[in-house]
Amino acid sequence: MSINVTVWGENVHEQREEDVRRRYPDGMHGAIAAGLAEHLGDGARVRTATLQQPEHGLTEQVLAETDVLTWWGHAAHDDVADEIVERVRLRVLAGMGLLVLHSGHYSKIFRSLMGTSCTVNWRDAAERELVWPVDPAHPIAAGVPRPLVIDAQETYGEPFGIPAPDELVFISSFAGGEVFRSGCCYRRGHGRVFYFSPGDQAYPVYHQPEIRRILANAVRWAGSASTPAEPPHNAHTPIQW
Amino acid sequence: MSINVTVWGENVHEQREEDVRRRYPDGMHGAIAAGLAEHLGDGARVRTATLQQPEHGLTEQVLAETDVLTWWGHAAHDDVADEIVERVRLRVLAGMGLLVLHSGHYSKIFRSLMGTSCTVNWRDAAERELVWPVDPAHPIAAGVPRPLVIDAQETYGEPFGIPAPDELVFISSFAGGEVFRSGCCYRRGHGRVFYFSPGDQAYPVYHQPEIRRILANAVRWAGSASTPAEPPHNAHTPIQW
Amino acid sequence: MSINVTVWGENVHEQREEDVRRRYPDGMHGAIAAGLAEHLGDGARVRTATLQQPEHGLTEQVLAETDVLTWWGHAAHDDVADEIVERVRLRVLAGMGLLVLHSGHYSKIFRSLMGTSCTVNWRDAAERELVWPVDPAHPIAAGVPRPLVIDAQETYGEPFGIPAPDELVFISSFAGGEVFRSGCCYRRGHGRVFYFSPGDQAYPVYHQPEIRRILANAVRWAGSASTPAEPPHNAHTPIQW
Amino acid sequence: MSINVTVWGENVHEQREEDVRRRYPDGMHGAIAAGLAEHLGDGARVRTATLQQPEHGLTEQVLAETDVLTWWGHAAHDDVADEIVERVRLRVLAGMGLLVLHSGHYSKIFRSLMGTSCTVNWRDAAERELVWPVDPAHPIAAGVPRPLVIDAQETYGEPFGIPAPDELVFISSFAGGEVFRSGCCYRRGHGRVFYFSPGDQAYPVYHQPEIRRILANAVRWAGSASTPAEPPHNAHTPIQW
Repeated sequence: MSINVTVWGENVHEQREEDVRRRYPDGMHGAIAAGLAEHLGDGARVRTATLQQPEHGLTEQVLAETDVLTWWGHAAHDDVADEIVERVRLRVLAGMGLLVLHSGHYSKIFRSLMGTSCTVNWRDAAERELVWPVDPAHPIAAGVPRPLVIDAQETYGEPFGIPAPDELVFISSFAGGEVFRSGCCYRRGHGRVFYFSPGDQAYPVYHQPEIRRILANAVRWAGSASTPAEPPHNAHTPIQW
Repeated sequence: MSINVTVWGENVHEQREEDVRRRYPDGMHGAIAAGLAEHLGDGARVRTATLQQPEHGLTEQVLAETDVLTWWGHAAHDDVADEIVERVRLRVLAGMGLLVLHSGHYSKIFRSLMGTSCTVNWRDAAERELVWPVDPAHPIAAGVPRPLVIDAQETYGEPFGIPAPDELVFISSFAGGEVFRSGCCYRRGHGRVFYFSPGDQAYPVYHQPEIRRILANAVRWAGSASTPAEPPHNAHTPIQW
Repeated sequence: MSINVTVWGENVHEQREEDVRRRYPDGMHGAIAAGLAEHLGDGARVRTATLQQPEHGLTEQVLAETDVLTWWGHAAHDDVADEIVERVRLRVLAGMGLLVLHSGHYSKIFRSLMGTSCTVNWRDAAERELVWPVDPAHPIAAGVPRPLVIDAQETYGEPFGIPAPDELVFISSFAGGEVFRSGCCYRRGHGRVFYFSPGDQAYPVYHQPEIRRILANAVRWAGSASTPAEPPHNAHTPIQW
Repeated sequence: MSINVTVWGENVHEQREEDVRRRYPDGMHGAIAAGLAEHLGDGARVRTATLQQPEHGLTEQVLAETDVLTWWGHAAHDDVADEIVERVRLRVLAGMGLLVLHSGHYSKIFRSLMGTSCTVNWRDAAERELVWPVDPAHPIAAGVPRPLVIDAQETYGEPFGIPAPDELVFISSFAGGEVFRSGCCYRRGHGRVFYFSPGDQAYPVYHQPEIRRILANAVRWAGSASTPAEPPHNAHTPIQW
């Protein structure tokens, strides 16, 4: 069974900042897509889309052909058009999987699906992050070391302004002592959402093999909701049975 | 300890339809407020607000003085101004309790807090509804009969387009065989949200003593989140500790 | 990928009661196994085991070769040896899937995994049961009609003495008005547990195609926990990383 | 409203080890009881009970008069009589609150209520523990600093072999980089259970004011389940309504 993945990238830091371009010559979206292709192999068709494209590359047709969408944004959340956000949200409710990555916690799409502030505390000190699986049998944790070590990362700290996750997969600690719920699963409508915090323009995290493996695991998980015979409701519907 | 409650009513059916006016001469909001005052006694200050008032009666000051807000709407969800909805949402995230009643499932405020479609199936056949406590030790179920019988009600049916509740308190069945998660608790930010489905303009449900008791229980529950020393975040915040 | 299923049957009603034998000439376990084989096809190896066999048919070797175990018991819960129950429990915590069926809610294995009373209210009146999916995109609900109609069943009623399910898939109503959380998912240790209430010795429920489909869906779901690289703990373990 | 608390202590380290006796001259149970009395004031009657007393001090009468029981054990879990454990468990299911402290994670009572291994990873290195509230509006987190700093503690690490908590209140990090779900709420039957990991015979944690405040918060929370009109089931019960 083939899975269709669209990797969405804000693609702003990569254009503006020389060091980010060197770290991610194909953009962060390029690195994420390469990692997914590597792990999912022939079982996946992976494409990318970016903010700068017409309709941010997320046309009705692209979304209709997407089983799982990944989202990375940071510097330009406000530049994403509300109607595209709503289009993506409705597709998630209709069954598309969604991976929200790192600073994407504050994206319009994540905030509109969660309903909460989605804020975090943060500090940037190139600290070591340890990612601990707290649900080792979860499919997203398959093959993940205990702990996964990221040598340098931006520090995120609790409280994280999210609803309690339906499934909590990872908790991270940082060298400074902070903790963060770094891997959180949600079921929303017919779709599945996974938030994963590691990954930042200033660090080569998306080149790290264990991180790529987690992203691939998460794509498989988010893509495996069953398709109900009946479409989801868009409105108050009269009962007929 | 005193609790401040604001009962918000859309107040449209009551104005337009003679039978609703006869059933609820003080409006549904009036009946709900009377029931709360009766059960909460001196421990509560209960006031009402309606759609037709300036700022729908929900000024910054009113909300600042409100511990728990109740919300009933149906015919005019779209007439509620987006900025008032956002004001209420931010207050919930900052710790205000919210009770969403019956057709309020499709209100802007509930949908924006849940992130999902919030749709239901429905049928109007004046059927008997049985409300079964499934978590009998929950404070909102205190003193509720097993089952609570409502002689005639609009029928709501699953699937209900909500996130899985943080606490599921009641499940209803209807004479036609439908089931519905009729009492659902959510924690969102610093606030607590309770959805309760019984109650419709066409039936005298808000005059029924057991229903009034549940609403009073729910107000107490929603008003008992603790107030954190620090305010909730409205943004990405640098870590300081 | 092949999945190994062991269908465990108490096999007491079938021996003692003529009408049960006529309804289930191969035992209820035989009917359940046939339904699973039919739906899972070559992807599964299905065998049966019964109370009357040495070690109840659940030797260490049988369990080591079992990915998912199904459990039906009613008349002889107390005759199941405690050491076999503990053996099964440890296997579940180590990753084996478990389906607990109907009156199995009161089995030693379910009660020991839940920690609660696991009691239900009940009535036997050959009533119509409607099984409603409340999470239509859940893999266990794939292809299930809305609602699934069972013409005659024993009536189970809330409150059901269980921990809140990690995922609630089905809620049933009965002609008499009762509701019941009839499809409940739990993750315990590395294993997945699904409780499903339809099915009774006095009704031909396990011959009904939609029921068989749900059981097959549930076997697939329960068998798809990932296998962590490291075995689960059996004790307080020194940290080494 | 007065609340009756029984503080149960294993009372073995205090008898055997001179340094523990110096640290806790009245036993750990004595220190815990003193902290609760200090914070709950006239609103509470706090008594202690220990392993060495007849029936471990937990007679039917003592339990009948107890709203919330706290449990600390480590060296002698196996010496607690099974029938007393079952007596406590049934009382929890009937509505008594239970606080399980530190190494009590591996007690018979906690394991029998959870159904899982309840194992942890550990290391004893007198490390700094930071306790972070992840649900700042939870009543148990009221007044808790962000983070709470414990200068020296035994290190506990994930994975913690528990069911997913119904409410996750605290996550700790340790100087060595481990994380641990250190404050976990469960609802079981009519009772409420809170597990809290800080506290060890080798460190003066139960003398620390913030820790005492959390324990008092937790006692209030665990003692505030409502009392259903009807007793919980001890068996399969015929439906009557």
